[in-house]
Amino acid sequence: MFPASMRRLARLARLGALLAATSAAMAAPRGASTGDMEGFSPSAAAVEAALEQRFDAGLSAQEQRDWMQSMSSEPNHVGSAHDKANAEFMLRKFREWGWDASIETFMVLYPTPRDLAVELVAPTHFSARLREPPVEGDATSEKTRDELPPYNVYGADGDITAELVYVNQGTLEDYKELDRQGVSVKGRIVIVRYGGGWRGLKPKLAYEHGAVGCLIFSDPRDDGYGAGDVYPKGGYRPPDGVQRGSVQDMTLYSGDPLTPGMGATPGAKRLTRAEAKTLMKIPVLPISYADAEPLLAALGGRVAPPAWRGGLALTYHLGPGPAKVRLKVLSDWNQKPIYDVIATLRGAVEPDRWIIRGNHHDAWVFGATDPLSGNVALMSEAEAIGKLAAQGWRPRRSIVYTSWDGEEPGLLGSTEWVETHAAELKAKAALYINSDTNGRGLISVEGSHGLRHFASQVARDVGDPETGVSVLARSLAAERVQSYEGGGRPADGSGDLPLGALGSGSDYTPFLQHLGINSLNLGFGGETQYGVYHSAYDSFDHFRRFGDPTFEYGVALAKVSGRLVLRAAQAELLPERAADFANSVGVFTEELHKLADGMRASSRELDQLLDDGVFGPATDPSRPRTAPQRESAVPFLEFAELDTAVEKLKQSAKAFDIEYLRLCSAADAGAALERERMNAALTSLEQTLLDARGLPGRAWYQHMIFAPGAHTGYGAKTLPGIREAIEDRRWNEANQYVGIVAHALNAYGARLDAAIAAQ
Amino acid sequence: MFPASMRRLARLARLGALLAATSAAMAAPRGASTGDMEGFSPSAAAVEAALEQRFDAGLSAQEQRDWMQSMSSEPNHVGSAHDKANAEFMLRKFREWGWDASIETFMVLYPTPRDLAVELVAPTHFSARLREPPVEGDATSEKTRDELPPYNVYGADGDITAELVYVNQGTLEDYKELDRQGVSVKGRIVIVRYGGGWRGLKPKLAYEHGAVGCLIFSDPRDDGYGAGDVYPKGGYRPPDGVQRGSVQDMTLYSGDPLTPGMGATPGAKRLTRAEAKTLMKIPVLPISYADAEPLLAALGGRVAPPAWRGGLALTYHLGPGPAKVRLKVLSDWNQKPIYDVIATLRGAVEPDRWIIRGNHHDAWVFGATDPLSGNVALMSEAEAIGKLAAQGWRPRRSIVYTSWDGEEPGLLGSTEWVETHAAELKAKAALYINSDTNGRGLISVEGSHGLRHFASQVARDVGDPETGVSVLARSLAAERVQSYEGGGRPADGSGDLPLGALGSGSDYTPFLQHLGINSLNLGFGGETQYGVYHSAYDSFDHFRRFGDPTFEYGVALAKVSGRLVLRAAQAELLPERAADFANSVGVFTEELHKLADGMRASSRELDQLLDDGVFGPATDPSRPRTAPQRESAVPFLEFAELDTAVEKLKQSAKAFDIEYLRLCSAADAGAALERERMNAALTSLEQTLLDARGLPGRAWYQHMIFAPGAHTGYGAKTLPGIREAIEDRRWNEANQYVGIVAHALNAYGARLDAAIAAQ
Repeated sequence: MFPASMRRLARLARLGALLAATSAAMAAPRGASTGDMEGFSPSAAAVEAALEQRFDAGLSAQEQRDWMQSMSSEPNHVGSAHDKANAEFMLRKFREWGWDASIETFMVLYPTPRDLAVELVAPTHFSARLREPPVEGDATSEKTRDELPPYNVYGADGDITAELVYVNQGTLEDYKELDRQGVSVKGRIVIVRYGGGWRGLKPKLAYEHGAVGCLIFSDPRDDGYGAGDVYPKGGYRPPDGVQRGSVQDMTLYSGDPLTPGMGATPGAKRLTRAEAKTLMKIPVLPISYADAEPLLAALGGRVAPPAWRGGLALTYHLGPGPAKVRLKVLSDWNQKPIYDVIATLRGAVEPDRWIIRGNHHDAWVFGATDPLSGNVALMSEAEAIGKLAAQGWRPRRSIVYTSWDGEEPGLLGSTEWVETHAAELKAKAALYINSDTNGRGLISVEGSHGLRHFASQVARDVGDPETGVSVLARSLAAERVQSYEGGGRPADGSGDLPLGALGSGSDYTPFLQHLGINSLNLGFGGETQYGVYHSAYDSFDHFRRFGDPTFEYGVALAKVSGRLVLRAAQAELLPERAADFANSVGVFTEELHKLADGMRASSRELDQLLDDGVFGPATDPSRPRTAPQRESAVPFLEFAELDTAVEKLKQSAKAFDIEYLRLCSAADAGAALERERMNAALTSLEQTLLDARGLPGRAWYQHMIFAPGAHTGYGAKTLPGIREAIEDRRWNEANQYVGIVAHALNAYGARLDAAIAAQ
Repeated sequence: MFPASMRRLARLARLGALLAATSAAMAAPRGASTGDMEGFSPSAAAVEAALEQRFDAGLSAQEQRDWMQSMSSEPNHVGSAHDKANAEFMLRKFREWGWDASIETFMVLYPTPRDLAVELVAPTHFSARLREPPVEGDATSEKTRDELPPYNVYGADGDITAELVYVNQGTLEDYKELDRQGVSVKGRIVIVRYGGGWRGLKPKLAYEHGAVGCLIFSDPRDDGYGAGDVYPKGGYRPPDGVQRGSVQDMTLYSGDPLTPGMGATPGAKRLTRAEAKTLMKIPVLPISYADAEPLLAALGGRVAPPAWRGGLALTYHLGPGPAKVRLKVLSDWNQKPIYDVIATLRGAVEPDRWIIRGNHHDAWVFGATDPLSGNVALMSEAEAIGKLAAQGWRPRRSIVYTSWDGEEPGLLGSTEWVETHAAELKAKAALYINSDTNGRGLISVEGSHGLRHFASQVARDVGDPETGVSVLARSLAAERVQSYEGGGRPADGSGDLPLGALGSGSDYTPFLQHLGINSLNLGFGGETQYGVYHSAYDSFDHFRRFGDPTFEYGVALAKVSGRLVLRAAQAELLPERAADFANSVGVFTEELHKLADGMRASSRELDQLLDDGVFGPATDPSRPRTAPQRESAVPFLEFAELDTAVEKLKQSAKAFDIEYLRLCSAADAGAALERERMNAALTSLEQTLLDARGLPGRAWYQHMIFAPGAHTGYGAKTLPGIREAIEDRRWNEANQYVGIVAHALNAYGARLDAAIAAQ
């Protein structure tokens, strides 16, 4: 669902350099790592390393290629015949590979368009094409008979005609600027540029500001000719390419809009459409830049601010009007079935501790990159693990491989499955490992920070397909070079991978943020030419030319993900470096202090500027821009409880990590009980960070450390209850959530303390 | 010559806010300022204020409009009939207004094109239009019979065909990046984007890197549709608009290329063309974006780095080839006459102290904005001063009004005049006040920092035509708002105008940087739509719509410049706040410390990255980019002598300013001699900052504090002998210039000390 390679690029650009890469990190991967493996005793590590060699031998780039070609040969969106066929194909494969596999079906609300139109009706006339024609050399681009036309699922029905306003990316900041420029969207249709946050926030904020319709276009500066040569010459978005996508309000909850918090099983009690809060209230359509250009060219009014101007060969104006647009969206609001493929390999020693691995299989059209590039790597892993099992091997803990349906409309397959099996998952799931899109380039890993060293060790032990150095070394090298070249902050010198916090945009969300299951999300990217996100041109022919032509990065993803699965399943101790988590929370807490202090200073400065009346004289009288609104004063917040909890957590973490390392190296059998006690503590450790009340206004999100931003959607907000309260100037709520977060951190620390308490 | 309004905008965007604008600054201008006027006793200030009221009454917006319309009615470049006619028109006017006026003529090398061609010869064929067609509603755009075709004066003759390479703005950094990407310009023609420094550096650096020809194009992102609606709908550059301009190497010396350091009088000894170092070695032509588009579209090779991509609707590639281009430039290399208009009003009390005011009158085509907008303000001032004289008033010091010819090709008129009269100017010139283009908006003032408070007081006393507050208040308000909105560093809280350092690009250069005459440069701008710089569309019809429709900013410029002239001519003490200068030099010195320290840290980091071999693993194997070259280590520089001189200067300045203020307020007649001694010291004070050896490799530039950057051209480099030596890693030279600069500062301080020494 999410343009992971793009986000990776952005993050890489932000990241800083390590002061010194360790020589170990820079060396070529050892392939077998016998000495240093999180959670393993030395002897167990040697066994694991040998297992991983055999695992690698079971991976095949050619198979990944064949699977992708076949699975992307027809449109495979939710409800399509090929979507179901792909699930059934995987079911057969999993069973063939020795897994205990089944398909779990849910019935979800999934509107599909039956009548769409976008027309410029004044001052001239133009009818938007709203479709993606075949391109030369792309075999599937002609096979669109069964494809849905480009649309934004969960937008409202409507047929409206109104003046057009250009609102840039349609963020809160953009509406503030429009307000200062004297432009209102009330009763108008907005045209908004993709980028700057979750797509669904664009119509949501437009609606909240009074707009009656929303067109979202792909600007060529962002992923078209401004980014590189367009398809089929290069891999970037051609003029008619459209970014489809969901506009459900996933900041409230993910999954079927009609069954929040429960599985969308046949008999489940469902909301009416009117009751479902994640459905958009206004019609929305995505359009290509070929379709957007005449609309934007017809806009008058002021010239847009410099940062709002895109790559079209015209002057971007704000409007409103004289461009007047008709927008028509009528959909079939039926329920459709989705097909999750679930495959289990039962653990021999700790069967009730589950290591879950997932990727989705549904796409917007053919979905070669998104999601099949990740899904075929997952299939490779399942086959290789199956081969190990066929040779008599059994995992210590249970391994569950999943391929989700309905991720694109809103993480439907994963969410409904998680909600259906919530109690069991809370009891048994120790780790969820997600991937989505994949391609040539550098590894990117996001997740809970206690897993950082674990993930880094795996990255150290897998070789980059093209350069010969380890995947970790490439990542660290890029981080250092980008920092040197002015792209980011220096890293922490740990020699570990930078680990991003998890927001949303793929199937880890219900696991982590709803249930509190420790999660990782990963993939390679940044060296692809990927400008066809969510279009019909995200095809096999595109991927084999511009994604990962040799599928060696698909194999590399399987090696990394497979190792994460195998090590988590086999380790004597589940992975955890508590100090990494505690220190990260310490950094987040410092950020909150700085956020509040910065806002306080800024509000005071604004007060002074308003008192001095400088905004009037500073503005161009021919283009007046009103002063910003005066802001409420920023009080000093009651951070003490949080600061105390962080300090205490750091101490607990330090003690825990020492004991953890001792238990890893302890060869005496007597430690087995202590290990079991620690594993029991670790399996559900992340759940101590939940609060049943959830986040303000969105109770479904229960994780107190990580959430998708209510105003960003994809981007993670850390300590979100406090951070967003500060950002939105809800001071009482900020103070309230200080207490709630401190409570969660104390629970986490107490769990660590208990795990190492004398028996 | 210089796009002043653009630079002003850029500067305004950089500037920070004052912590608090004084209420005085925010108040409406008092019109008459009786209480606080730099260099005046209270009683003299009252007289001066009344004089300024009468001066203002002599200004007329309608006259400025009429003069501009007539002077811009035909092409008026050097050598044109209308250029001479304009000089003669002004001569008649100055005489009519009572000035002792004459025209001073020089003969300068001024090549004009006789055969130009740009053709794409492979892989397809295209002939560039190379001309600017008429546009609707622009009366003069059809009167181009006498105009020169768009060209870059002082480019070499040639007729070459070679592969094309896109080099972005053609800066040193750009060539380093090309080198890392494996692209050479050797034997090729470069196509380079306008912006990022003085135009003449583009072919110079291209030549130094082996290129055989140079095309400079105006990218629509910069001043075309990316900036705003294009002419005639808006004021920005239309597709066929071309930026003409000089490419002489003005970083060596300005003026006639054949007579460096001496006036280009009929009998002057001249260099041969081969000897003239400021002539370009390769052919160069400026082209429009309509002409550039097919050339850029025909380029292959790698995609240009993101920051290099412009506003055309195509993917910018680097080349080389397959685009192959023919570039032909053949010129008439005759000498042409230039006509400086010089008008004097002899001082009654101190006739041998001159206050000089200048603007140029030559243009590239019609030149409504550049330079006539400033020139008609200057004419207004001369008329109003003439009216005062007709009523019997005589200035205390001599006032000299000048209108230069030949500024566009390289400050020819001003430079030749300054070089011809160097000895007399060094003895008599106390201040040179320059303007060039003008338009709606905020005031911008650049100059020697001892004049900052003087200029600020004038800005305080002139009202902004549209908002009613003072010109100073608008500037300070904008500075504060822009800093608040993230645009710049906070200002110093003095309540004075931000004062930029003088680089080059207009006629102050020979005065300040060659002779050491205290200088100011000023104009209004930033609220115009000015994208027609150096094109045939810089016309009266353009200016009356998008420049300064009411000409009230022309009147405001006359009020500010006239006050600067009158106060400098009338003040009992010439303007000087030595502490402002000393503190500024202190800031420049701190910058040098930071520059060297930053380079040292950066070079060490680079060493470490190279030692660790991270550039290889960090690069995309499909688009390899080599590691940067290892840099020479940055030694600790011998800054002590400079630091000591700055410290000493600050002390001298403090003592001087106290005595200066005492003398201003002293009403006793006995102070007259002390004042005379101080004025004598101040008249040539700036000359203490000269060093006869000049700057490294460019002896003509003798000012040790300000120079145009050798690698920037327009942009000022402060303490240039040291700064550029550091930037270019010439460590011995840096240490050498520490001594030279310290010597100059010590001389400046000694002059201050002497001026206040007991008699």
